[in-house]
Amino acid sequence: VLSAVEKLTALLGPARVLTGAEVSEDDWHDESLVAHWHAPDVVALPHSAAEVSAIIAIAREFGLPVTARGSGTGLAGGCVPREGGVLIAFREMSAILEIDVDNQVAVVQPGVSLRQLDEVVARHGLVYPVYPGESSASLGGNVATNAGGMRAVKYGVTRHQVLGLEAVLGTGEVIRTGGKFVKATSGYDLTQLIVGSEGTLAVVTEAILRLYPRQPHAATVLAPFRTVAEIATAVPRIVQSGVAPMILEYIDMMSMAAITAARGLELGIGAAVKEAALAYLVVVLESRDPGRLDEDIEQLGDLITTLGALDVYVLPARAASDLIEARERAFFAAKAAGANEIIDTVVPRAQIPEFLAEVSLIAQDTGSMVIGCGHAGDGNVHLSVFQTDPERLERVLRGVFAAGAALGGAVSGEHGIGTDKRSHFLALEDPAKLALMRRIKTAFDPDGILNPGAVLEPETASMQPSAR
Amino acid sequence: VLSAVEKLTALLGPARVLTGAEVSEDDWHDESLVAHWHAPDVVALPHSAAEVSAIIAIAREFGLPVTARGSGTGLAGGCVPREGGVLIAFREMSAILEIDVDNQVAVVQPGVSLRQLDEVVARHGLVYPVYPGESSASLGGNVATNAGGMRAVKYGVTRHQVLGLEAVLGTGEVIRTGGKFVKATSGYDLTQLIVGSEGTLAVVTEAILRLYPRQPHAATVLAPFRTVAEIATAVPRIVQSGVAPMILEYIDMMSMAAITAARGLELGIGAAVKEAALAYLVVVLESRDPGRLDEDIEQLGDLITTLGALDVYVLPARAASDLIEARERAFFAAKAAGANEIIDTVVPRAQIPEFLAEVSLIAQDTGSMVIGCGHAGDGNVHLSVFQTDPERLERVLRGVFAAGAALGGAVSGEHGIGTDKRSHFLALEDPAKLALMRRIKTAFDPDGILNPGAVLEPETASMQPSAR
Repeated sequence: VLSAVEKLTALLGPARVLTGAEVSEDDWHDESLVAHWHAPDVVALPHSAAEVSAIIAIAREFGLPVTARGSGTGLAGGCVPREGGVLIAFREMSAILEIDVDNQVAVVQPGVSLRQLDEVVARHGLVYPVYPGESSASLGGNVATNAGGMRAVKYGVTRHQVLGLEAVLGTGEVIRTGGKFVKATSGYDLTQLIVGSEGTLAVVTEAILRLYPRQPHAATVLAPFRTVAEIATAVPRIVQSGVAPMILEYIDMMSMAAITAARGLELGIGAAVKEAALAYLVVVLESRDPGRLDEDIEQLGDLITTLGALDVYVLPARAASDLIEARERAFFAAKAAGANEIIDTVVPRAQIPEFLAEVSLIAQDTGSMVIGCGHAGDGNVHLSVFQTDPERLERVLRGVFAAGAALGGAVSGEHGIGTDKRSHFLALEDPAKLALMRRIKTAFDPDGILNPGAVLEPETASMQPSAR
Repeated sequence: VLSAVEKLTALLGPARVLTGAEVSEDDWHDESLVAHWHAPDVVALPHSAAEVSAIIAIAREFGLPVTARGSGTGLAGGCVPREGGVLIAFREMSAILEIDVDNQVAVVQPGVSLRQLDEVVARHGLVYPVYPGESSASLGGNVATNAGGMRAVKYGVTRHQVLGLEAVLGTGEVIRTGGKFVKATSGYDLTQLIVGSEGTLAVVTEAILRLYPRQPHAATVLAPFRTVAEIATAVPRIVQSGVAPMILEYIDMMSMAAITAARGLELGIGAAVKEAALAYLVVVLESRDPGRLDEDIEQLGDLITTLGALDVYVLPARAASDLIEARERAFFAAKAAGANEIIDTVVPRAQIPEFLAEVSLIAQDTGSMVIGCGHAGDGNVHLSVFQTDPERLERVLRGVFAAGAALGGAVSGEHGIGTDKRSHFLALEDPAKLALMRRIKTAFDPDGILNPGAVLEPETASMQPSAR
């Protein structure tokens, strides 16, 4: 009788089935600060949906957990292999299959990186607008986590760009969903259900992504404010003004100090303003016309001055791109500073001040430091939590998530639940919805082999599979 | 032992439980040209999600089919009551519960009409951007069918506006999904799954809808072209130009004649142009600034002239609103002209010419007249089919749907499958996906009481329930 590894080797050949010392430590983990690393029993490198289907059939036969992996840049442990399991790594499925200019879509394999896609679509004057802050991230991972990022306030998140998928169910069946169109009412929307399901419903092998005209002109406005609350009050006014910011972020004083120090960034802010500013608003506007951009900047500047900005800086191009890049790398600054966990609760954007007030109380109460920045335009608050005591850390997290939920928010805006946030998600979510989600999971994956332990189900003690 | 009607009466009181002659004929049907009308055994008029839950519990106890109904303006028989069933009519749940200006959302009950919502949000300088062409349509029905309409090319369809729901499952459980935010990765997206499921997964009792700044300035450009194919070729160029049309429609010559005649509309098009034009492009632009609007019109005019327009007319405001309204009422013009069926296949927008060529062949082949207009910007082609022979009509429909599917499209862009298109949908869709959809249906509605016969399942012969 053949073992699972032997069957996989017969399917893919020895070069595309890795075990033991052949498995790189890179494949043990993602960027999560807290997830336990696991070496997968076997790494499979498929070339097609048919091969993924065959891998899943073998895994199903042997009762092995299957985790899919793109670039491993996730932040919630969602692609960390399960004990004893099969890791499907998509590094050999990284082709851009088509750029369809007339329909303004790209068709990509899951291993394609954001940087790779951007380079190609730029040549056509187009843009794929999701920038989750890590351009080595894979589209497959972006689809699995419904990745967001700073431009979501204008363009929406990954789910708004995914028009169709090819995916393999837990049954091994390969399905195609959606198509090169934005509208359809023809049965249930399987595309939207799979997006953001973190590899627990299906393994995505191809995605049809929406593209947009690339705007040639952009400008970045930086405005220090006395408090985050003032910024949060200003944000709805900016959205209502119609200038349609591409980016609308806040950065608290501590985070600003950390990210500017990490990059030696000098933004030319006077000492008196620096002294008074507890938070910074960053707005990026874009336009196809430079004259309109100038008008919009002026309108925005006037507006935020009346809304209490201590000053308004239109950043030179270099400083602007440095600041945005530094903001994108805020996670790494937090990590370098010794953060014990990073979270990304979402609340209604007008509730950010109340939420941050609650967070301050929790931080005080537990003797923790909690600093942050966030996508102010869509209520997605990124917090770095500094608390070395594990029990207290759990208390901070549960408190913050509960505060977000009480304000009508959700545990994660874009990182996902993964394995890291599962206990909090399960504790705070309505049991009727959890039971419904488990039934949906079973509809896609009757044996529960797809990424068990992520999102919904704790790994059962009885599952002690081995691929060897 | 109490009957179902007696239990419903005990729950709601006699005034909100209608049977026999109390049931208006309006509740027997929607606007579908082909659906069989059914008098429901009983009409229930709930005031709350709790009452809907109790109604569903009673229906479940007696094995009665439950169909939800808004304004009955659907076009695919989706809200036509099932034989022997309970109709939940939402005319007494028609309150706008909240306009949250800072978060730019409305919270509405399912019986709220588009007109009612528009009047209220307009006072706040906001707009709910879905205009499916019938302002008496209810938001509950719009959510159920994922309604689209002409503005989808800019704003997307209903699913892009629905941020959260309150809904009652087939188990009677009441759940709340999503919230006042556009992004979340916290479990499966139940909101998006319920939107467009045509009342077969859950009965929606509340919706959180996204609003946008209302643009004060708009202009309508009408351009006759030699052929629809030329228009379809022009459309991607217009989208790429960045002028971001709010409306981007084509109307074929026959449809134009019908809708202008129906309203006595005179657009000032010269005789020679009229002679040469087989199709018309209609573009509506909007802006917050009148100067920018003028620039955009000029840029658009230049562009479509180079793309082959026979002429370019910027319509006076009155003629513009008359034309758009006439286009919105195209369905009624087709109905008045004796159309036997109307359909709304979606294809990738660049494939519209190929699709229409296939449609012409099918029309010729079957001796049918098929005319149309459509949302050129998003590939959603509305066709009126004139063919009185039922067998031939079925042949036309199957052929057209199959042609759309072969080009990567879907049966319906916005009307839905309902009962009318079910046989075609079931015949053309991948059996693996249908089986998956049935398992999802069971996850929401284990006894199959929610709108059976719509979308997926034929009514079984064994189901012969009665509420009396």
